[in-house]
Amino acid sequence: MTNPTNDSELYGLTNLPYGIYSVDGSAPRGCTRLGDHVVDLGVLLGDATFEQPTLNAFLAQGKARWDEVRAAATAALADGLPAAGTHPIDDVVLHLPFEVADYVDFYASEHHASNLGRLFRPDNPNPLLPNWKHLPVSYTGRAGSVVVSGTEVVRPCGQRKAPDAELPTFGPSVRLDIEAELGFVVGVGNEMGTPIATADADQHLFGVVLFNDWSARDIQAWEYVPLGPHLGKSFASTISPWVVPMAALDAARVDTPTQEPAVLPYLDLDRPWGLDIDLEVEWNGEVVSRPPYSSMYWSPAQMLAHLTVNGAPTRTGDLFASGTISGPGKDQVGSLIERGEGFLEDGDEVVLRATAPGADGTRIGFGECRGRIAKARS
Amino acid sequence: MTNPTNDSELYGLTNLPYGIYSVDGSAPRGCTRLGDHVVDLGVLLGDATFEQPTLNAFLAQGKARWDEVRAAATAALADGLPAAGTHPIDDVVLHLPFEVADYVDFYASEHHASNLGRLFRPDNPNPLLPNWKHLPVSYTGRAGSVVVSGTEVVRPCGQRKAPDAELPTFGPSVRLDIEAELGFVVGVGNEMGTPIATADADQHLFGVVLFNDWSARDIQAWEYVPLGPHLGKSFASTISPWVVPMAALDAARVDTPTQEPAVLPYLDLDRPWGLDIDLEVEWNGEVVSRPPYSSMYWSPAQMLAHLTVNGAPTRTGDLFASGTISGPGKDQVGSLIERGEGFLEDGDEVVLRATAPGADGTRIGFGECRGRIAKARS
Repeated sequence: MTNPTNDSELYGLTNLPYGIYSVDGSAPRGCTRLGDHVVDLGVLLGDATFEQPTLNAFLAQGKARWDEVRAAATAALADGLPAAGTHPIDDVVLHLPFEVADYVDFYASEHHASNLGRLFRPDNPNPLLPNWKHLPVSYTGRAGSVVVSGTEVVRPCGQRKAPDAELPTFGPSVRLDIEAELGFVVGVGNEMGTPIATADADQHLFGVVLFNDWSARDIQAWEYVPLGPHLGKSFASTISPWVVPMAALDAARVDTPTQEPAVLPYLDLDRPWGLDIDLEVEWNGEVVSRPPYSSMYWSPAQMLAHLTVNGAPTRTGDLFASGTISGPGKDQVGSLIERGEGFLEDGDEVVLRATAPGADGTRIGFGECRGRIAKARS
Repeated sequence: MTNPTNDSELYGLTNLPYGIYSVDGSAPRGCTRLGDHVVDLGVLLGDATFEQPTLNAFLAQGKARWDEVRAAATAALADGLPAAGTHPIDDVVLHLPFEVADYVDFYASEHHASNLGRLFRPDNPNPLLPNWKHLPVSYTGRAGSVVVSGTEVVRPCGQRKAPDAELPTFGPSVRLDIEAELGFVVGVGNEMGTPIATADADQHLFGVVLFNDWSARDIQAWEYVPLGPHLGKSFASTISPWVVPMAALDAARVDTPTQEPAVLPYLDLDRPWGLDIDLEVEWNGEVVSRPPYSSMYWSPAQMLAHLTVNGAPTRTGDLFASGTISGPGKDQVGSLIERGEGFLEDGDEVVLRATAPGADGTRIGFGECRGRIAKARS
């Protein structure tokens, strides 16, 4: 089957995502991708910031430095692959690209929230809860459970209770699901007590990863009242090994859908913060859905402003995910529960991919966010 | 007013809590407390593990090493304060003692959960939700918002909506509350996919801190459906500067209350995991409540087993808090909403303290968990 997002043309000079690689057991170091090759950024730029096992030190340097490094890498690669520090992508291991500080998951798709509302509250004529259009609803998740693409996902065990059962039972989840999302990476945080305005989000947001928020629906359904999902989510979340910088996504900026009722002033946007990113969900080799990120109701700038409006600090390496991306069509949903044709079996493999418009009429790719379900451990 | 928990007798040889201090702007280092003095553990033991600004490296060394260091410190201090590396406690600054990895908050007090159930669901004859006695209900909180005792707490702003209002408004919280809790510090984590059995909790749990989970009730009430509390909690959580090691709490071990209905086998306990720790809540100089930790329904070993039963990994520096500690009496509640006599005003100061039985008939103290409310920033 043709796999457009593995096309090396998606990794041209207008993309230049950031990652961490090793080769033959070497110490992990910072890199970018050009075509089908990985290029060592420490070697390319002579910058020791990339001679480290995570991108965090680079993320902390701030937007002016991010722009400088991108310009320098673009110039250094303008004539093609350099002789030194270059490896075919199939020869390297790609690692978790940054150390995750705090991780938050939003719920920013109106289609997804409505679909779940209809499933869980069928008698309520309004599938959205009263707060949904006023604030980007979210919860904090487990940062230590974020793993890189390719990491095996062990089917979680836990408590679940059938609606008609008297008592809960313990065992492997039988309603194991995915959630296709984007994750946003904070480069520079804010001080405690000082919120980030939507207009300043560019100074703080470094880039974007693909994100699969694996979800055990049966565990979640029993545990989540009144404090929200926890064990149903905390066993694993997978991200792509590449962080696509916000600078590569200028051509993908679009308006978010009209927000009605009007949002409170701290959530106002002064320019487009939607992103025209097309995802695809591959389940056991078949593309089963194509969620359009452009349909998301809440934008990353609004999420960041909301996260910090109470004075909460963010830090280098904070990660916040969009929530499941679902478009209006059944072939655009980002979770299996919305699809309604079964859940994940042992051995199943799910791969998320995405593309977006890049500069100069190009398209850019986000790599893969891949995971295979391993049998539960007793 | 007499303040028994500042009594230097609470910091004798049977306590020896761990902290991080600096003096006159020096680099922060590991220490313990003996009476009214701080003792530098790098100097005392000649151990470079304590010549660092957090306790994390020591925490990661595991229980055998924790026991060795405690024995060595006890022996070294048996004849009193050493000449070198000793400072009057009033001369030092105490810092956040460890870098927090993931932070989880439980809801382990039956009295607290019942009190809140009656407040929020007055028409329901059963104040506890159906899952409450089957699993320790919990949510993940913001690790980056954990601050050390003495840090100013800025009143958070956010969205809140009165029940009869059509739309939410934005502004400073007007229902700012405390939650008096204990926090448990993970020294050695588990690998992803491998749960921690209750019988193995001692190998992973390093110690205990006092914990104030500041809570904006109005923000929380509007945001929390369906994904749980977030902005109503994430602006700040305060911990004491001292980590009292589990080894100091052997004499405080008591049985937890009988659990009925019986819990699932993974939550069974093979020995007492309750803790006879008496807290006190001081509000503007007056002790307004004395929450008894011994009344908690769920124990830390059960919390850790539940946290990991789905395979979620824990890490060195993970912190999980008990949830509000409330006893059966109105003078034993751990939050102001349960007390029913108002919330925090600007300038108010809250101090949590606690004592517990130590070895040889002594009592041990936990230091202070102090915070003052600063005016909201516009």
